[in-house]
Amino acid sequence: MSLERLSVSRAFEGAQAVYRHASAATGTDMTFSAFVPAHEDGERLPVVWYLSGLTCTQANVTEKGEFRAACARHRLIFVAPDTSPRGEGVPDDPEGAYDFGLGAGFYVDATQEPWAANYRMWSYVTQELPELLFAHFPADPERQAIMGHSMGGHGALTVGLRNPDRFKSVSAFAPIVAPSQVPWGQKALGNYLGPDRAAWRAHDAVALIEDGARLPQLLVDQGADDPFLEKELRPDLLRKACAYAGIDLTLNLRPGYDHSYYFVSTFMADHLAWHAARLA
Amino acid sequence: MSLERLSVSRAFEGAQAVYRHASAATGTDMTFSAFVPAHEDGERLPVVWYLSGLTCTQANVTEKGEFRAACARHRLIFVAPDTSPRGEGVPDDPEGAYDFGLGAGFYVDATQEPWAANYRMWSYVTQELPELLFAHFPADPERQAIMGHSMGGHGALTVGLRNPDRFKSVSAFAPIVAPSQVPWGQKALGNYLGPDRAAWRAHDAVALIEDGARLPQLLVDQGADDPFLEKELRPDLLRKACAYAGIDLTLNLRPGYDHSYYFVSTFMADHLAWHAARLA
Repeated sequence: MSLERLSVSRAFEGAQAVYRHASAATGTDMTFSAFVPAHEDGERLPVVWYLSGLTCTQANVTEKGEFRAACARHRLIFVAPDTSPRGEGVPDDPEGAYDFGLGAGFYVDATQEPWAANYRMWSYVTQELPELLFAHFPADPERQAIMGHSMGGHGALTVGLRNPDRFKSVSAFAPIVAPSQVPWGQKALGNYLGPDRAAWRAHDAVALIEDGARLPQLLVDQGADDPFLEKELRPDLLRKACAYAGIDLTLNLRPGYDHSYYFVSTFMADHLAWHAARLA
Repeated sequence: MSLERLSVSRAFEGAQAVYRHASAATGTDMTFSAFVPAHEDGERLPVVWYLSGLTCTQANVTEKGEFRAACARHRLIFVAPDTSPRGEGVPDDPEGAYDFGLGAGFYVDATQEPWAANYRMWSYVTQELPELLFAHFPADPERQAIMGHSMGGHGALTVGLRNPDRFKSVSAFAPIVAPSQVPWGQKALGNYLGPDRAAWRAHDAVALIEDGARLPQLLVDQGADDPFLEKELRPDLLRKACAYAGIDLTLNLRPGYDHSYYFVSTFMADHLAWHAARLA
């Protein structure tokens, strides 16, 4: 699979680059960013996957996430995929809404028309992009962690819960934890997966836990002044599910913080240190 | 003078906000950002002024500069003005070039038409905005530092050299050090100040040093792979002027680094620690 490097800059003694490649999963070109810290020839470094939220591309966290200092310190590769297929012929929300379609793939493989042809972000982030990463980058498949923000927190939780042997650690900033129970998730899962709610459970962190998925630990930070807290994010539902399942959840409710990258960047170094300890 | 807060987010336990106000200096509305770390009521904190480069607004460094962690640690207020007047009726480069007019005020008070009415960035950043800051923010006028990037590095050097009693420390990332001798500067100073090159010397760091301006120390970081290094930035001219004048210049040439915020953010914490030591 060929990989085109669109840009690269030295940063924190490593390399921050953006790549494009033809994706078999989505049938489109896909773009992602990767930060690779300074390392020895032949050395393989642990990888942190970062899944972004609604409206984002790879660029938001790459520019605003403030992850490079910590990744350089802990020697972590940081990979940020896009949030949906894009390009000519890719269908979008009929009204151009921000919460569905372009920029809002919700990390599922759509089964419904007209979405099924391109909206295959589950396959993309769990299979195609990892294969490409381990083929082209000095990344160690035995040491992977996953994290995300908002819709990407939902992605990190669901990918992590369904692949407990692959990821040493899973964390999230302000995640959607129970999409089946909130408007963003109901719209997205209804459109991508159809009306049968049984099919939604594999893409709902709280439902996955209820159905038996387990992780040893979870780290979640959530701004207490996040405008989406009560209607869309509902960390209370994750807390309840983890308590029921015996999952060691650290849920930090941060007074005064909102949903933005000002919040994410504030706690990014904490999350990366937590992952690094589990990837060592 | 009234100040409208356009946005605010908690970050690193402080507040990152963007403000707009009517400027008497430029005759337009002006926008700036300010990060204020957590502090006690009545306490006054040191201030770092950050002047941005060509094409930037206050937003570039605010989003990509990675200064908040260090400002919170050292308890520094960080203020980022815009780079030019903007708005209806403000003249721009006739060909819309990126290196003159909007986004390219060069921190001078223009004397030539049609620029003289609005392009008064020297008065704005040295008089009007400081007055506004000290009236509205918990900032200590006895503890100020100034820094900048590229065209803003030029601004920081010239403002610092001409106000040695006001600023405890002056630093720059990839600054234009001798605008009179390079294409960007010759175009800008020629248009804003007219053909008499004697008038340019007050806005040229190397010429100011040649004419007797002194600072005890200067800190400059410069990417060795910066595409503008040899034609526009010329750190060799600053090195020569400082050697001649006995100014203690630390000039770090950073192998592999370019002109972007990936470079700036990498060395931001170093610069802020250096300023903090001089503002203590």
